[in-house]
Amino acid sequence: MNPLNELSAVEAASRIERGELTSEALLRACLDRISARETVVGAWQHLDAEGALVRARTLDRGPRRGLLHGLPIAVKDLVDTADMPTEYGSPIYAGHRPVADASCVAMARRAGAVVVGKSVTTEIANYTPGKTANPRNPAHTPGGSSSGTAAAVADHMVPFGFATQTAGSIIRPAAFCGVVGYKPTFGLIPRAGAKPLSDTLDTMGVIARSVEDCGLFAAAITGREALRVTRANSRASLRIGMCRTHEWPQAQPETVEAFERATGRLSKQGLRAVEATLSKEFAGLVASQIDIMGYEMARSLAWERFERGDKLSERLRGVLDAGWQVANARYDEAQAHAARCRAAIADMFREYDLLIAPAALGEAPKGLAATGDPLFCRIWTLLHLPCITVPAGVGPNGLPVGLQIIGRAGDDARLLEAAAALAPTLTG
Amino acid sequence: MNPLNELSAVEAASRIERGELTSEALLRACLDRISARETVVGAWQHLDAEGALVRARTLDRGPRRGLLHGLPIAVKDLVDTADMPTEYGSPIYAGHRPVADASCVAMARRAGAVVVGKSVTTEIANYTPGKTANPRNPAHTPGGSSSGTAAAVADHMVPFGFATQTAGSIIRPAAFCGVVGYKPTFGLIPRAGAKPLSDTLDTMGVIARSVEDCGLFAAAITGREALRVTRANSRASLRIGMCRTHEWPQAQPETVEAFERATGRLSKQGLRAVEATLSKEFAGLVASQIDIMGYEMARSLAWERFERGDKLSERLRGVLDAGWQVANARYDEAQAHAARCRAAIADMFREYDLLIAPAALGEAPKGLAATGDPLFCRIWTLLHLPCITVPAGVGPNGLPVGLQIIGRAGDDARLLEAAAALAPTLTG
Repeated sequence: MNPLNELSAVEAASRIERGELTSEALLRACLDRISARETVVGAWQHLDAEGALVRARTLDRGPRRGLLHGLPIAVKDLVDTADMPTEYGSPIYAGHRPVADASCVAMARRAGAVVVGKSVTTEIANYTPGKTANPRNPAHTPGGSSSGTAAAVADHMVPFGFATQTAGSIIRPAAFCGVVGYKPTFGLIPRAGAKPLSDTLDTMGVIARSVEDCGLFAAAITGREALRVTRANSRASLRIGMCRTHEWPQAQPETVEAFERATGRLSKQGLRAVEATLSKEFAGLVASQIDIMGYEMARSLAWERFERGDKLSERLRGVLDAGWQVANARYDEAQAHAARCRAAIADMFREYDLLIAPAALGEAPKGLAATGDPLFCRIWTLLHLPCITVPAGVGPNGLPVGLQIIGRAGDDARLLEAAAALAPTLTG
Repeated sequence: MNPLNELSAVEAASRIERGELTSEALLRACLDRISARETVVGAWQHLDAEGALVRARTLDRGPRRGLLHGLPIAVKDLVDTADMPTEYGSPIYAGHRPVADASCVAMARRAGAVVVGKSVTTEIANYTPGKTANPRNPAHTPGGSSSGTAAAVADHMVPFGFATQTAGSIIRPAAFCGVVGYKPTFGLIPRAGAKPLSDTLDTMGVIARSVEDCGLFAAAITGREALRVTRANSRASLRIGMCRTHEWPQAQPETVEAFERATGRLSKQGLRAVEATLSKEFAGLVASQIDIMGYEMARSLAWERFERGDKLSERLRGVLDAGWQVANARYDEAQAHAARCRAAIADMFREYDLLIAPAALGEAPKGLAATGDPLFCRIWTLLHLPCITVPAGVGPNGLPVGLQIIGRAGDDARLLEAAAALAPTLTG
């Protein structure tokens, strides 16, 4: 039998509900794991073991609060908490303590969650890494910007936690750490109280160890019961589009292999998995995403750039300065491009129930000085579509390789259900 | 000749640029006006006269920074400032000092603006008023939630300032105070650093005493030069739709009169101003806006409601609790309704260059216990269209009545130009 900290959230929640497990016991197992591994993994920017224990005991004594009753969670340190520091991965915000919890944190707590601590984010959710290592091999990056949540979940420190994505900050670290990342349809989970970067891209999401756990978490936060994966699945009827995307030439051999193996396995099981080609219109969409993100982020972080520029990394200053180089007309054209592609992809989803595409270039690169490239996530974030990455192979260094499953905008419940049904086949 | 504090922003900017006026002299005139009138008007939550003077003198000694060089502005106290308290109109945030300036504040400062202080907002931009009175008649409400900015501008304390709108919080107070309110196309001015209420509705905007000043302000913040009203206008060719909307039965006699007088005046000047009727689809759009706003606001303010509920007014608690009563399915249907109406109004704008509609039920109601009804603004905010209110008459108490001019989504430059051309006719 698994140690308690390795339980799925669905299983732990069910045991707590049945009175077979206390929140305190579950939390202690998680805290033990953190004690044993944190010096290697470095997932936490701030840990509140004492506060979490008090909270767990309170929950154990009281009535059931909701779907997350007694479950420990990580909160990415880009997301405000009233009772813990929130530093956005930047020395500018050293020791900063927000007045209020972010909306999603307040709702998680209301559903009974125990916030264990704040998980490491890269510098203001950009490219300069924090201290986190990949728990599968600490010489490799965990990915970013949700580095801490991905690593903590992969290392069985907590079953799940909050992550955010503007380019590829949920899907990439989840793929690199061999866990499941869920970026919902744009706007599904409120982002009030997360540091804003890019108003038309920033998306709140979840990293967990299974699709079912992602669904439980999202259902608890949103009150959308349909997000829980409970129905018997009907995967036989799924029309799956295998979508290499225009970025395919940059896929590394292990990603090519995972993609092709997935196609083979799905077909062998009698599923309809056919090549889905994005039209020419989508070819420049990565460039449009980069323009939009740069333009909006330069403005969102105007104060940081112009009043505290000396406390930003050179890299982030460079990103922001590039954003200021995007002219208004170019930004407007990029948004018009995105709108055209959203309409085109909606049409495409008449032929497919879901698409499967690479989650990252390949396995997690070696070294902790960079977090890898969000290339394969950029268009899906810009298209506002729900995406779930699941492990689908290993790379030359034995590290995980992910594939992402992409659904119709707003159709998160069906995507979660389908992803849960397909994950065993993809993971193998 | 006008006293300096009554100069338009465009004129003041031009005099400063030509070296005929110093920022300090302009600011002192504004501060004198504030000293003389603040006990009656109550526009300011926080005033930083000393800081503003230091800033003005620095600007006077240095090179020209941008379009707002040396111009005093008000910042609604819903919008973060690093150097002044930001209390969101709520005792929950008494004395709160954000780490950073909001994006729009940082950009205003970068363009040379002098922030005079924080202008009063109703409680978290909802319905419980602050201390502000209508400068035209202090027994009447100035409207809300951007009460302080509207009153300060109308009372010649500053030429313009930031305001925000989720239902009718720019247009209504501007109309009630007899000034010009500009709610841009959704997303045009970044809102990062304004307290989030409703992610799909919150819009950053401007209140000024003329359309031209609104354009200058928006151009300075966004770097969109086209928003400045400088071109010779071609109002003769404008196709104007006079749009009573489905809420027309609730228009008070002074609004009916202003609307009909406007139709007559425009026609008399040879302009094409014809009745524009919104289809049946728009009839329930106010209800959809209320559902969306309530649902999203309940979530954005979850921490305030559940952790600090005792410090919220009963009224705001009621609004939030009503928001929690909106089921997910009802919210989804309201968003689908909004999407259908956005498509329908885009079609309608093939026939019209702009629409003219009521800005509020009537003149500012008597009493300071409420801020009036945003009814006539709700659909336009939900439709994400740019709106400008201009004075267009007076009510039975001699207070101003506004009409709003509504443009195509994203077509703010043409709307500003047309509104500037039409304002003299509408105002009479």
